[in-house]
Amino acid sequence: MANLPAPIKDIQFIADEVLDLTAHYKKLGVHDDIDAETFMTIVEEASKFLHENAGPLNRNADEQGCHHEGTSVTTPDGFKKLYKEFCESGWAALDGDPEYGGQGLSYWLQLILGELNTYYCPGWSNYPGLTHGARELIAHFGSDVLKQKFLPKLTTGEWSGTMCLTEPHCGTDLGLVNTSAKPNEDGSYDITGTKIFITSGEHDLTDNIIHLVLARLPDAPKGTKGISLFLVPKILLNADLELDQRNTLGAASIEHKMGLNGSATCVMNFDAAKGFLIGEGNDGLKIMFTMMNGARLNTGIQGLSATQASYENALAYAKDRLQMRAATGAKYPNKPADPIIVHPDVRRMLLTMKAFAEGNRAMAYFVGQQIEIIKHSKDQVEVKRADRLLAFLTPILKAFLTEVALEATDNGVQIFGGHGYIREHGQEQWHRDAKIFTLYEGTTGIQALDLTGRKMLMMQKGQIGEMAELIQNFINETDTPMNQELQNYLDMWQEMTEFITGQAQKNANEVGAASVDYLMMSGYVILAYFWAQLHNSAENNKGQLGADFYNGKKKTAQFYFAKILPRCHALKATIMTGADPLMNIKESEF
Amino acid sequence: MANLPAPIKDIQFIADEVLDLTAHYKKLGVHDDIDAETFMTIVEEASKFLHENAGPLNRNADEQGCHHEGTSVTTPDGFKKLYKEFCESGWAALDGDPEYGGQGLSYWLQLILGELNTYYCPGWSNYPGLTHGARELIAHFGSDVLKQKFLPKLTTGEWSGTMCLTEPHCGTDLGLVNTSAKPNEDGSYDITGTKIFITSGEHDLTDNIIHLVLARLPDAPKGTKGISLFLVPKILLNADLELDQRNTLGAASIEHKMGLNGSATCVMNFDAAKGFLIGEGNDGLKIMFTMMNGARLNTGIQGLSATQASYENALAYAKDRLQMRAATGAKYPNKPADPIIVHPDVRRMLLTMKAFAEGNRAMAYFVGQQIEIIKHSKDQVEVKRADRLLAFLTPILKAFLTEVALEATDNGVQIFGGHGYIREHGQEQWHRDAKIFTLYEGTTGIQALDLTGRKMLMMQKGQIGEMAELIQNFINETDTPMNQELQNYLDMWQEMTEFITGQAQKNANEVGAASVDYLMMSGYVILAYFWAQLHNSAENNKGQLGADFYNGKKKTAQFYFAKILPRCHALKATIMTGADPLMNIKESEF
Repeated sequence: MANLPAPIKDIQFIADEVLDLTAHYKKLGVHDDIDAETFMTIVEEASKFLHENAGPLNRNADEQGCHHEGTSVTTPDGFKKLYKEFCESGWAALDGDPEYGGQGLSYWLQLILGELNTYYCPGWSNYPGLTHGARELIAHFGSDVLKQKFLPKLTTGEWSGTMCLTEPHCGTDLGLVNTSAKPNEDGSYDITGTKIFITSGEHDLTDNIIHLVLARLPDAPKGTKGISLFLVPKILLNADLELDQRNTLGAASIEHKMGLNGSATCVMNFDAAKGFLIGEGNDGLKIMFTMMNGARLNTGIQGLSATQASYENALAYAKDRLQMRAATGAKYPNKPADPIIVHPDVRRMLLTMKAFAEGNRAMAYFVGQQIEIIKHSKDQVEVKRADRLLAFLTPILKAFLTEVALEATDNGVQIFGGHGYIREHGQEQWHRDAKIFTLYEGTTGIQALDLTGRKMLMMQKGQIGEMAELIQNFINETDTPMNQELQNYLDMWQEMTEFITGQAQKNANEVGAASVDYLMMSGYVILAYFWAQLHNSAENNKGQLGADFYNGKKKTAQFYFAKILPRCHALKATIMTGADPLMNIKESEF
Repeated sequence: MANLPAPIKDIQFIADEVLDLTAHYKKLGVHDDIDAETFMTIVEEASKFLHENAGPLNRNADEQGCHHEGTSVTTPDGFKKLYKEFCESGWAALDGDPEYGGQGLSYWLQLILGELNTYYCPGWSNYPGLTHGARELIAHFGSDVLKQKFLPKLTTGEWSGTMCLTEPHCGTDLGLVNTSAKPNEDGSYDITGTKIFITSGEHDLTDNIIHLVLARLPDAPKGTKGISLFLVPKILLNADLELDQRNTLGAASIEHKMGLNGSATCVMNFDAAKGFLIGEGNDGLKIMFTMMNGARLNTGIQGLSATQASYENALAYAKDRLQMRAATGAKYPNKPADPIIVHPDVRRMLLTMKAFAEGNRAMAYFVGQQIEIIKHSKDQVEVKRADRLLAFLTPILKAFLTEVALEATDNGVQIFGGHGYIREHGQEQWHRDAKIFTLYEGTTGIQALDLTGRKMLMMQKGQIGEMAELIQNFINETDTPMNQELQNYLDMWQEMTEFITGQAQKNANEVGAASVDYLMMSGYVILAYFWAQLHNSAENNKGQLGADFYNGKKKTAQFYFAKILPRCHALKATIMTGADPLMNIKESEF
């Protein structure tokens, strides 16, 4: 199976030339000791480490998967060594707080590290990924005692973390959570209940696992307002912060899945396990949701990585596989046939993948920049703007990047022909692995409801707010060949936003009926904006990446506007037919 | 895992009410002893047999797969017993020639049997399916000696058949085949070479396997014109037609695949294996292609079956799973939450699946009718018309039904949320199994080239020919609420046909560039025609299937026109941007 190096030049182009990391950090007044060259050196080192150590494990991780026996879970061969070296080389602590042993590097670099983790080995990526999320949550909301106790080892990666939300009867609808928390006299709580789909709930990579668990206090109100968050360690600590006795919790089983087999997905039983309240009682869901933007951005990036990896494999195959002659006459008359990259339809599939991977990277990094602005900027107007952009873009990014990853990875299989269906080539694995990204951290439907029901209706200035402003400013201030088209689609998007907002007044089902179509239209228009930006940056390039590189970007931008963006016409047409075609049919008539 | 009964009422509606099987057979003067009731009794019996015997094996077939040792291949548990009973109950011989022990029933029933085989257990479906194809080919093109020798046991299913086309370096491009055939003095040939992706190439279900192998005679011209077809039995027969010595061929390995694990996909080595020429020398590809329409129709129907099965599971889940309240207020206030079928976006996904499954069934059966007309009609004008319709519709049906099966089965996973990703529920298996249908028997890209490059440009009367005429006549003669829309989309389709035909004069790449978009547009418009027909039949129904059933059909027709058909707007827009956006980018700029 291919283990092709990550597209460092593409990362560099977006980070340095399109989104100008140097100016970004200079303006923020943080990480400004790191210039673009140093930034890229770190990215290259991370890529090199993972290319050598994670990539080679990917195929076997899928075949071997994880194994459960008693209450322990074994990860695929090589994961233990990889995890150890990942931590020892300091990658686990990359953007960690130096107070707890972290390297204090930027969140953006951490995002790219996550991108590379998934690019080289999706099944591996969630072990460091979830630990990072748990660490951030404790840093934001944990008491000083909890921070002192748990953050140092979560920062170095010696311990790992989980998020325990879902129960058998509730995933989306967390108001139905019924795991219970009974207060003890010492201020701790006894947590009892069953959680499912717990990523890294049990494994053999670390000495301890820190679970963040949603549960209900005895007097809690019903529904989402009565949920609290608890830190529940697998192994309890003694007074000297050493590992002491095992807590009364464990993995009852692991799931057998469509893909992402290297990642242990556990059913966790908590049987009066000792836990510690994080934040205030009944604030659990609010706290979880505060962390959700980062988690959803990471999931979107996982989709991007799958798209990119599948593309790299498909591109290599399309240049190598000889089959039929070009329609306009043999391109390589000395070979028995032409490489399939000469065929228009193969190019259509390759360019679709390329357009999604490279454009969506700009979108993802841009969202990452907003998180950094919120974290570090002292300009409150700017923070507020970033906050609103983040709120608006997060559901789009999460759902759009993962949905198009399914299309892209399917194209990736299709380019291989029948060989794409064979596991040994590793190409179909990208499609199977990618499918979970449209499901976990909130399904596409849930993201779409978040966007239309919450974010769209809540935006203050105009319906699309800051994002529309950004696009409009770009059109006004630049002169790309696609500006007029971009304006047309921006107008269409505005029009649909107003249409749905109007419909929503009349019938509550209109919002849900339009939600996924509207989200996808939003994604396509925003991606068009980023492709126009990429075109603009390629036109005014720094020259460091070579003429072919920049020409490729400009031509892919043109491809995107010609062959992908017009999908908005169909979405507009379906949005405008409203909710009736969905709601008219009775349950008994299905 | 669910093993839900097949939708008999839907089969009945299309066969009896929409496509009026009684009138069809009466007009043809064959099978007219079988009325709709008897026809449906046979369908019900087949469904019952497979529901009881094949459905329960489906999940394990995926997990266990096939196993290869030495030169033998073991099928999943239960397949041997199922195959034996399938043959003993006469299902293998359903439409077989009574001269060779067949039951002489209609091809249409055979198509439905194939549909049910895949519906209950895709991994099983290819064992009887390929045998049927091999039998038909020998019946059409084999010498009397070969027919007498091989047809009886291929008809009863005691022996099975394969098609051996693909080699490691050529799948689509069969001109590159280099398996050789050396004539022996006794009139037989020594066949030497390696074939890959051979479905049912080796297995434990039958005493003998009859391979149909493409190979080159010593003096054969290069390319596609120098390929001959040979019958190569696994076990050679003695003069008394008894099994004698083993031929020098065997399975070198089996493939590990994304899905369809119950179906053995073999690498076959032929080492001077004794074979017998079918038809004339160098006519091999022509003969194979004659059989291709049936094989492609069957593959399209496999896509339909996956769509239907995934839909049935998803519908049951959506009625059962409680999560959140309806946007317009609780529908089931006594339950802790409403079933997810109340949510507009869940309905959008369910109706998408339903629209594809039920409408495409009409398309598939209609194509089946054309094959029957070609076989049996004495009216040469009608035969010619059916022949042209079949040629035109086959690539559309094959590619469209299988591509939308991917979308449908992905929706099927999505409706299950995270549970859809878990193998135990069986829902993700439909998506994995379905993926091969867009690849084998010619990829979607190949179907699209067949349609645009061969069929579209070759049609004589107008560009879309008989199919446009059928639709126009329907619009003129009926009065459905969707007639005007149907007319608009028919006009759009005509317009695009003319546009591409015009472009093709200027640049040979234009055909390939537009091909898949054009094929999908063709599929959507033709499906719109069938949905208008279903609406019309439901409006003028026979009453036998209940009011809910007919109302459901009418509302699904409205859904299709509102929410699916507008995709043509996007396809039109992308078609009209032509080949440049695909061809401008240089290989080095990817």
